[in-house]
Amino acid sequence: MRLSRFFLPTLKETPSEAQIASHRLMLRAGMVRQSASGIYTWLPLGWKVLQKIEQIVREEQDAAGAQELLMPTIQSADIWRESGRYDAYGKEMLRIVDRHDREMLYGPTNEELITQIFRDNVKSYRQLPQSLYHIQWKFRDEVRPRFGVMRGREFLMKDAYSFDIDFDSAKRSYEAMFNAYLRTFKRMGLTAIPMVADSGAIGGNLTHEFHVLAETGESGVFYDVAYEELAAKDAVDLDALSKLYAVTDEKHDPNSPDCPPAERLKEARGIEVGHIFYFGTKYSKAMGAVVAGPDGNPVHVEMGSYGIGVSRLVGAIIEAYHDDRGIKWPEAVAPFKVGLINLKAGDNACDRVCEDIYRALSEQGVDVLYDDRDDRAGVKFADMDLIGLPWQLIAGPKGIAAGVVELKNRHTGEKEELSVEAALARLTA
Amino acid sequence: MRLSRFFLPTLKETPSEAQIASHRLMLRAGMVRQSASGIYTWLPLGWKVLQKIEQIVREEQDAAGAQELLMPTIQSADIWRESGRYDAYGKEMLRIVDRHDREMLYGPTNEELITQIFRDNVKSYRQLPQSLYHIQWKFRDEVRPRFGVMRGREFLMKDAYSFDIDFDSAKRSYEAMFNAYLRTFKRMGLTAIPMVADSGAIGGNLTHEFHVLAETGESGVFYDVAYEELAAKDAVDLDALSKLYAVTDEKHDPNSPDCPPAERLKEARGIEVGHIFYFGTKYSKAMGAVVAGPDGNPVHVEMGSYGIGVSRLVGAIIEAYHDDRGIKWPEAVAPFKVGLINLKAGDNACDRVCEDIYRALSEQGVDVLYDDRDDRAGVKFADMDLIGLPWQLIAGPKGIAAGVVELKNRHTGEKEELSVEAALARLTA
Repeated sequence: MRLSRFFLPTLKETPSEAQIASHRLMLRAGMVRQSASGIYTWLPLGWKVLQKIEQIVREEQDAAGAQELLMPTIQSADIWRESGRYDAYGKEMLRIVDRHDREMLYGPTNEELITQIFRDNVKSYRQLPQSLYHIQWKFRDEVRPRFGVMRGREFLMKDAYSFDIDFDSAKRSYEAMFNAYLRTFKRMGLTAIPMVADSGAIGGNLTHEFHVLAETGESGVFYDVAYEELAAKDAVDLDALSKLYAVTDEKHDPNSPDCPPAERLKEARGIEVGHIFYFGTKYSKAMGAVVAGPDGNPVHVEMGSYGIGVSRLVGAIIEAYHDDRGIKWPEAVAPFKVGLINLKAGDNACDRVCEDIYRALSEQGVDVLYDDRDDRAGVKFADMDLIGLPWQLIAGPKGIAAGVVELKNRHTGEKEELSVEAALARLTA
Repeated sequence: MRLSRFFLPTLKETPSEAQIASHRLMLRAGMVRQSASGIYTWLPLGWKVLQKIEQIVREEQDAAGAQELLMPTIQSADIWRESGRYDAYGKEMLRIVDRHDREMLYGPTNEELITQIFRDNVKSYRQLPQSLYHIQWKFRDEVRPRFGVMRGREFLMKDAYSFDIDFDSAKRSYEAMFNAYLRTFKRMGLTAIPMVADSGAIGGNLTHEFHVLAETGESGVFYDVAYEELAAKDAVDLDALSKLYAVTDEKHDPNSPDCPPAERLKEARGIEVGHIFYFGTKYSKAMGAVVAGPDGNPVHVEMGSYGIGVSRLVGAIIEAYHDDRGIKWPEAVAPFKVGLINLKAGDNACDRVCEDIYRALSEQGVDVLYDDRDDRAGVKFADMDLIGLPWQLIAGPKGIAAGVVELKNRHTGEKEELSVEAALARLTA
């Protein structure tokens, strides 16, 4: 993509309404614009990142054996009356009356709808276990939306639902999803700490929150250092994990017998990006989701739900990866891998070398953003640092005369002078 | 995917509420389920098709130089007051009041929101021309939703918007999108007839509807046979096209001087799947979308909008491609390329051959649905014809003993006995 054609409205000034780094940087880097309180448009740069994150989440859900479908955003109030949550949910639910005066709502979550789909279509234990998920926009009418996409009203969530014939099977489904979460966050370059969560209104006793570590995270977390090794693994055993200490600051008790000694206790800041629940037969009983068991008798299915805040992850990754100059994208979620800077657009030699590089990288399937604008070098460096592509390739008249271009690593800041061929080899390796 | 694990609730009976072929077949093939009037859940099979169609639309929009972003579903009423459409839109607009009593709505289309984004972020003619699009769920509160996803209330639409400095440039943007539409529908196996449309409430005089031909289509169409050649091309000249006759039946006038002679006049049935408009400065004037022109003076930008009914296309393709037994997917949008039928699951030889084929095709990147269920051959044949995968590969004890499997083409009905190797070679060619 040529920057001269790309819809990328970067801002020099820091918007006054943005209180946290990710919100500031997403506005400044031209990733999003607010269109109403807590409701955002994803501009092309932000949309590319959101799609990459969504795709990683999708691949790991598929690998865990879950099947993707898509439930609508607008639901009937009727099924929420069946579960008893219509009145209980409160003002965060966006309630709607249609032209025929039917009560509808914008789904804040989907336990009711998926339970309805399951009960209408699955009749036998032989069709279990079954995990279904979708990645769909949700709406929660927060009283005070803030922090950009971190606490917006319209947000993208992956929610999965498992259906099992008994507790042992349900626990295996839970564990498969638990491990899928560790892999998902790891692929994005994040360290996620799973914490035993309050079961709260949803019921049941098997539930974890996943907090990813970021210096500017919203909440303090205390955890056993062993978690960092666990988070680096592809699969862990829940029973082993449940003995390890990990809590948010409001629950931290240094005098608790569970709290590890100081040399093993880590204090950090984190951002909640996932929440998983086992809740047994809460919805299947309320809504009559039964299958014929092996003996022919009806059995209420055991259920769990598994959420990831997909749009929230964009903010969380920025909180974990940024500096004073801008974002530093991990390569797996970067909107482009390489930013190619032409230091003197209009100069024959610079244009020729840059066009050759742009073509060569594009032909190799490397996503490149080519800054071909007729603008000052300082503007180009600042914009490229701001939008945070992992690699910058800088071509100027002096270097080209000497047969070299400069390759900069946005994460480490390291710069290196290389021939064009060597730089291309490095970026297509 | 193994059918024994796949969430595919096919129906033997024809649902009584479904009046047209695509609605009946989408319900029977387990592609969708209605969750409220005119609101559908896309089950895994339907969701796969919808994603394939969406991806073709996306690729052709990108190829036409449009840039993808994502606008939210919920909009503020304020911008619709600016354009004057808030009161004019009527009961089809789903109006919402949030917890702070602010008037919101579920977007039925996005002219206002994109104009707001444009005016806030683009300031100079040098940034033009610009085309932006998104593929997002819309809501229109139809008084009588019917025909399944063909006239639902929550539906997926691709809407693009072009911004140009003057009429000549706007016409080039319009023509680029016009040709992108012809390519988009052609890739899906459809013949699309563009018709000069009524400009209606939206204003302007350059506007076309695209109707795809289907024997069971909703409207009668009359057109010059030359259109069929045009639709097969990758690019056409609008001026040449505008001289050709193409109208829906309510506008057809055999005595019109524009109507071609009988030997060149074709009568068919069609389904509207796209609509494009040039509407000049209607929104840019109402909402103050100006850029600095070459002489420094402010210029109201010239705009166009370009819609494709993405979820509607699923129904339209089925209307064009089905028979009494079920759907016949064109390969480009098929949920799987191959349906592998094991005629005797549990038989050692059948299982071994089928597992080998399943593995070999999957490794080659061929999407296969493997019917490994312990069920009667008749059930398997009926289900496979119903869901309409382009190729069926059938393996039974007798054939395997003789060293052959059967390859069936769902479109032509042709069957052929082949060695496993020859069948694999054919399907991976």
